[in-house]
Amino acid sequence: MCIFCDIADKKIPSDVIFEDDAVMAFSNIEPKSPVHILVIPKRHIDSTKTLKEEDEELVGKLVLAARNIAKEKGISESGYRLILNTGRDAGQTVDHLHLHLMGGEKLPFA
Amino acid sequence: MCIFCDIADKKIPSDVIFEDDAVMAFSNIEPKSPVHILVIPKRHIDSTKTLKEEDEELVGKLVLAARNIAKEKGISESGYRLILNTGRDAGQTVDHLHLHLMGGEKLPFA
Repeated sequence: MCIFCDIADKKIPSDVIFEDDAVMAFSNIEPKSPVHILVIPKRHIDSTKTLKEEDEELVGKLVLAARNIAKEKGISESGYRLILNTGRDAGQTVDHLHLHLMGGEKLPFA
Repeated sequence: MCIFCDIADKKIPSDVIFEDDAVMAFSNIEPKSPVHILVIPKRHIDSTKTLKEEDEELVGKLVLAARNIAKEKGISESGYRLILNTGRDAGQTVDHLHLHLMGGEKLPFA
């Protein structure tokens, strides 16, 4: 049972912003900034901690997808932050790797 | 003139934590958390905005290097945050792509 696997499988509906064979992006339902999108691998990976060396390209795909979405959302020039939270101290709440794309306002340092 | 290129070229000394052909990691001289390390590509790339599709693997190498360093620094279990800041709203201060690795304490949401 993983909520992000269910979103990737379309068992749970989401606001799909981008999708290809490996990656899906959807709006965070609890946005912390005007633009707050989550980009996930469709395949289940718990977190950055459990990535394997052969996942390098997949991780790059997440970042490039987020970059392309930022451009589509019109925040490429104003700026944006990409975040991977891992474990308790970072406040990771869903144990399926997800890249936060945040922007649309001046972000606090973090 | 790019300070992070000069660090990668060893023209400016730094506290090198990890280095291979493509990637270098060093301590942030103005740490915002107990562990605050920057992981950069040795090759100059301005920011996430200027990444090319063929840079996917390189971006993955940055993240995997940060993950391995987190383990070496003993914060793999407690948790850590990886951040790519792009442009003004995110507070990007050096125009050479750099991944922040932050941890060693409970981090504020961001």
